[in-house]
Amino acid sequence: MSQPVKSVSPAKDFLLSALSEENCFQNTEAFKNWFSRKKQDNRFSVKQIPFSFLQQWYFEEETQNLKHASGRFFTIEGIRIHTNFGPTQCWEQPIINQPEIGILGIITRKFDGVPYFLMQAKMEPGNVNLLQLSPTVQATKSNFTQVHGGRLPPYLEYFLDRKKSHYLIDQLQTEQGGRFLRKRNRNMIVAVDHEIEILDDFCWLTLGQIKKLLKEDNFVNMDARTVLACVPMPGRDVSREQSIDDMMHELNTSSLDDFSQSLLESLFCHEESACLTTAEIISWFTELKTKYHMTVERIPLKNVKQWKRTNMEISHEEHPLFSVIAVSVEAGTREVFSWTQPLLKEPQQGLLGFIAKKIDGILHLLMQAKVEPGNIDSIEIAPTVSCSAVNFKRQQGYHIPFLDYFLNAAPQQIRYSAIQSEEGGRFYHFLNRNMVIELEESDKIDLPENYIWMTLGQVMEFLKHGYMNIDARTLLACIGFKH
Amino acid sequence: MSQPVKSVSPAKDFLLSALSEENCFQNTEAFKNWFSRKKQDNRFSVKQIPFSFLQQWYFEEETQNLKHASGRFFTIEGIRIHTNFGPTQCWEQPIINQPEIGILGIITRKFDGVPYFLMQAKMEPGNVNLLQLSPTVQATKSNFTQVHGGRLPPYLEYFLDRKKSHYLIDQLQTEQGGRFLRKRNRNMIVAVDHEIEILDDFCWLTLGQIKKLLKEDNFVNMDARTVLACVPMPGRDVSREQSIDDMMHELNTSSLDDFSQSLLESLFCHEESACLTTAEIISWFTELKTKYHMTVERIPLKNVKQWKRTNMEISHEEHPLFSVIAVSVEAGTREVFSWTQPLLKEPQQGLLGFIAKKIDGILHLLMQAKVEPGNIDSIEIAPTVSCSAVNFKRQQGYHIPFLDYFLNAAPQQIRYSAIQSEEGGRFYHFLNRNMVIELEESDKIDLPENYIWMTLGQVMEFLKHGYMNIDARTLLACIGFKH
Repeated sequence: MSQPVKSVSPAKDFLLSALSEENCFQNTEAFKNWFSRKKQDNRFSVKQIPFSFLQQWYFEEETQNLKHASGRFFTIEGIRIHTNFGPTQCWEQPIINQPEIGILGIITRKFDGVPYFLMQAKMEPGNVNLLQLSPTVQATKSNFTQVHGGRLPPYLEYFLDRKKSHYLIDQLQTEQGGRFLRKRNRNMIVAVDHEIEILDDFCWLTLGQIKKLLKEDNFVNMDARTVLACVPMPGRDVSREQSIDDMMHELNTSSLDDFSQSLLESLFCHEESACLTTAEIISWFTELKTKYHMTVERIPLKNVKQWKRTNMEISHEEHPLFSVIAVSVEAGTREVFSWTQPLLKEPQQGLLGFIAKKIDGILHLLMQAKVEPGNIDSIEIAPTVSCSAVNFKRQQGYHIPFLDYFLNAAPQQIRYSAIQSEEGGRFYHFLNRNMVIELEESDKIDLPENYIWMTLGQVMEFLKHGYMNIDARTLLACIGFKH
Repeated sequence: MSQPVKSVSPAKDFLLSALSEENCFQNTEAFKNWFSRKKQDNRFSVKQIPFSFLQQWYFEEETQNLKHASGRFFTIEGIRIHTNFGPTQCWEQPIINQPEIGILGIITRKFDGVPYFLMQAKMEPGNVNLLQLSPTVQATKSNFTQVHGGRLPPYLEYFLDRKKSHYLIDQLQTEQGGRFLRKRNRNMIVAVDHEIEILDDFCWLTLGQIKKLLKEDNFVNMDARTVLACVPMPGRDVSREQSIDDMMHELNTSSLDDFSQSLLESLFCHEESACLTTAEIISWFTELKTKYHMTVERIPLKNVKQWKRTNMEISHEEHPLFSVIAVSVEAGTREVFSWTQPLLKEPQQGLLGFIAKKIDGILHLLMQAKVEPGNIDSIEIAPTVSCSAVNFKRQQGYHIPFLDYFLNAAPQQIRYSAIQSEEGGRFYHFLNRNMVIELEESDKIDLPENYIWMTLGQVMEFLKHGYMNIDARTLLACIGFKH
């Protein structure tokens, strides 16, 4: 392998970009006008159809698994779960099996010393508003090996050839462990230092601009959010070179609001200011992995108990959980002009939330170790609350730890709140309210064994190595800095 | 969970212990006399027996898998592997399935400011010399839930109850991916700060003493080596507080030989002195995980192609690979007085080796990404060479990258060389020569895509998160510092 060229740490540059809403090409308002025009230009129609109208997709005779004729893309299969974690210890459910590793990637380029991100206005059939802001590239292996018969996704070569860009971030990150079986994507951020052609549906934005757009409901898609969560930020490593105060001064952070300043301190602070050391967090995680086990057995979809299939959907017999539906799509901006496909429909809104709280003056986030059936190694780290179908679960009397803090949050506690969409290529109208609330330092909280306080710097350190699940990452992407 | 008490970083103390061969209880010679007496006191007999003489173990009728009557301990089953990595892309083999997570743990306690390790003289039936130096505790879940019907392993409570000790290291680490299916143990180092009873077969040793004993063949067992590999050493984090020169001065490292000093610099050095950044190493690993896949299917032992069973062994029809045998054991120091069990016999010696080389003045180790069927996530990081049955593979003309560097190493290149035993509770006379050789900075080496240079500090950082396989860890444990 030709070794990649060594880079100066890009973390500080990215923080600079996160703090900047100024754009030398177009300000955020101009961008929004451009985006609105894209919406008008692109006429899509997405309709739910009976399964029998699906083209190329079929229920395999022996298993009744839902498959594509090419054998590629994904299949909807069944799984049977046994675990000693949580109130339900044995169940069966449908799941998406897509064993390929896709690429979610953003090209960055510095203008006037500030990195800009090449973002795309992209339609996905499951989005409530169809068009959302997306990464430069979101490609399944089927995409770039052209199973569609369509054209190769633009800019893909920058993520497949180290000679064409500088790979800054290149991490395997998991998808929803409740919906996908062992699914991961390669999350990449690459840098170019020369001019590249900007295609029609693409534009350069600073990270600060994207963070601003993340305050709006359903604007920035999930694929963008998971990549943005991986953006390296200066941690205790970078702060070795200068004092935290000097860095805060250089970045002109005094004009930031209190919470933003707390976030930066939580990012920069050294191990000894954290509630727990890295070794102690690893120990907590080790103990839980030792204590809790889960076996996941793949079973034919036809054998999944308590689920029924009509010609319109595969759904749970009693509960308003997710269902499998089919849609037809007609569009001008995707790889092929029209197609049909299955999607997972989520009937109710979920909630993803971080509780933030200062401990000994340093802001910490409350993290949860969570067992989900699609996880590659049983447990991943999730946000404080990660709960689908909130209303249903409340009505059923499920105990969701810390959920009430969010449902009853006073306005002055809320640091972030917006509705975000899960991946519109697999999910139909799957919406989660994303929230960050801050409690008083004096508020006392008892932690169940699978909850832990981490600084933002520690969260970012563990994220690099794949500990953070998609719900934690999507919330991390939403966290911005306010002047 | 009651949060563990925060510790001052123990890394520097451990380095102090690694540099110290002085022991306030007994010097190394007195220890060796004690150990020799233990050998004489303990009379063991281990004999190979026909499978039909096994008690409690049986071949299950339907699968011919080898199982224990309790359903616990481990089973010998078959697997079928498909992969696009390496020259052999499809094969079948027997494997040990032991899904439980055991505990390998060492108690430490400071005397005169230097941490000592509580080590045990312990017999295992597969050891060539039966008695080896072992960690304080090596317990399978079957051990501590007392499936044996024997007594509970001594000192186990210090690893099960956070109130009884301070957990310094507590990591899940994998075992041999070529022999075990997804097997992991909890590797733990705990500290006590009060007197504890020292039982008959136990003694306190400094890390420096243990490192000295690691220069001898087959003295320190594998369970000890994997735990010792996890001993935290000061990295770039700790060196934030003082300059590297100051730390070297404080630790009085000027009397160390050149290679030891290079090792320390490789441990302390900052990211920018390394050949690749952490992000670049993660990218290298991500690309390989994306490119190479492996599916492992569990199959009945009776269906494993090319393997045959007699009443004495299960072995490959043509090649001198490992075989499954049965032994009877009589001993006075194990949990029960006598027993029979299966073991995996390794007919030929293997070789584990690090190539070390300075790059821009900083020592780097050459690491290999290796796909093995028992790995939890397909690829782990192995040493430069990790090769079983060396002579057979040479005769067959296998291409093992970098093997010749070790076989032809000049004496002045050899920094470490000793034969070490794999775990004697599962393996019968499974020996590997462990070597570290150092090349000249000017020596040019072309790297295949799955090889990479890492500093010792980087290796330790990735080890914490479970990237390093058992072969890499056992070699790391062997690396010591010489005056």
